[in-house]
Amino acid sequence: MTFSQRVQDCIEKKHSLLCIGLDSDPQKVPPHLQSESDPVLVFNRAIIEATADLAAAYKINTAFYESRGSAGWDSLQATFDSLPVDVIKIADAKRGDIGNTSRHYAQTFFEQINADALTVNPYMGRDSVAPFLEDPQKGVFFLCLTSNPGSRDFQYLSVGGTTLYETVAAEVQKWNEKGNCGLVVGATHPSELQAVRRIAPDLPFLIPGIGAQGGDLEKSVFFGTDQKGGAALLNSSRAILYASTGKDFVDAARRVAEMTRQALERARQSKSEPRS
Amino acid sequence: MTFSQRVQDCIEKKHSLLCIGLDSDPQKVPPHLQSESDPVLVFNRAIIEATADLAAAYKINTAFYESRGSAGWDSLQATFDSLPVDVIKIADAKRGDIGNTSRHYAQTFFEQINADALTVNPYMGRDSVAPFLEDPQKGVFFLCLTSNPGSRDFQYLSVGGTTLYETVAAEVQKWNEKGNCGLVVGATHPSELQAVRRIAPDLPFLIPGIGAQGGDLEKSVFFGTDQKGGAALLNSSRAILYASTGKDFVDAARRVAEMTRQALERARQSKSEPRS
Repeated sequence: MTFSQRVQDCIEKKHSLLCIGLDSDPQKVPPHLQSESDPVLVFNRAIIEATADLAAAYKINTAFYESRGSAGWDSLQATFDSLPVDVIKIADAKRGDIGNTSRHYAQTFFEQINADALTVNPYMGRDSVAPFLEDPQKGVFFLCLTSNPGSRDFQYLSVGGTTLYETVAAEVQKWNEKGNCGLVVGATHPSELQAVRRIAPDLPFLIPGIGAQGGDLEKSVFFGTDQKGGAALLNSSRAILYASTGKDFVDAARRVAEMTRQALERARQSKSEPRS
Repeated sequence: MTFSQRVQDCIEKKHSLLCIGLDSDPQKVPPHLQSESDPVLVFNRAIIEATADLAAAYKINTAFYESRGSAGWDSLQATFDSLPVDVIKIADAKRGDIGNTSRHYAQTFFEQINADALTVNPYMGRDSVAPFLEDPQKGVFFLCLTSNPGSRDFQYLSVGGTTLYETVAAEVQKWNEKGNCGLVVGATHPSELQAVRRIAPDLPFLIPGIGAQGGDLEKSVFFGTDQKGGAALLNSSRAILYASTGKDFVDAARRVAEMTRQALERARQSKSEPRS
């Protein structure tokens, strides 16, 4: 089963487009967990346990772990090890380097951390990403159009009658020889999502920005998914993780996760209904 | 003293444009060190001790350490801690994320690892790099034109009558409000180096590719440096680290490092001589 098929399979089985971002900031972990030896790991495990039936994927951003040194790296590994088998495990590391160096990153995230997918920055071109694409079961979500304001600086540049982000999408579509390429397209750009979906009809999309960043959930599902195959995972991090900072954080996180999952499912169903 | 001034100062004091890349692959560490508890760290310390008077900078690529898990992260930190005070310490991590996430990366590399500079991928735009540019003493080398074949895929795209890499250079020149921005321009593209130097006359350049990657050393110095201020650090990794795989690796590394430093100095002096 290719990575792309696995994403679709996971979404269908879980009835969920939801990806939960475990960008767990040590300072935002509830106070009553701060006396644990690894408060972030205890927090992550509680969030995972409370939401495992609701999420199709979890995305773990390495920045929040690296800033804790080697202890953070152990915490990152233990968090991946705590994820259930029936979800897509995404390392949001935004790596990319020359070929012999990218091979080390591929080994790190696909073999050691045992992530199913990695986010990769495409700027350095094809040979820089080749080591990530060797195993059809391991996926790469390439940064295409990101959810932050700075996406305007380079990604929207006009390139041969189109934009840089559309050029990236078209190039990644060509790289998808093994069915394991995907794209990161921010929920903060719904109409651009539609354009990228036309260029790459069957690539899985990772769509950040529907929670705290204020992206439009319904439009993101409508324009980001494709009924002929293109799946989308919509990520929410802070809105779920920090739904409550008290002892009820687990219940609060589950409540927000379930509301988000349902809203995503409603949007998906409304898309598949015949329009008058 | 801004980061840019510090780079110039270091080059003048050491009479060296040489940056040594500690991309130490555990499998390539000489056999007689493999019984050490951390062979890479012992190897790095030996290389550093043998070359400290010859190098203006050391560049440590995180990929080679991350692939060893949390032990590798400790090894990365200990390698940085082993560097002398009179060199520029560069973390070659090619990071970059949305603002609140980049802040964690900045904290990791500038505060914990205590690097003087970090390589950053510019694709996500200004707000994604802002947290790296707050301290004038800490520098950022932005990927502009990389040394690998894949640089052709996006970096050479035609953008408004110029190229993407030149657009990146011009944008980074604007970001240089605190004197702490630099650019990565590969030695494998000497004539393009000249174009980038015109756009960014006073930014320090980090120029990889003069060793094993086969870039042109003399042209890189000629086109990459600017007598009015623009400094360049030319990186060699594998050619120095693996000059010998035997017990004489220290002497061999020093010999290649000194040859490279001298060749760089000759190129710099020939540039400063009046031409007939």
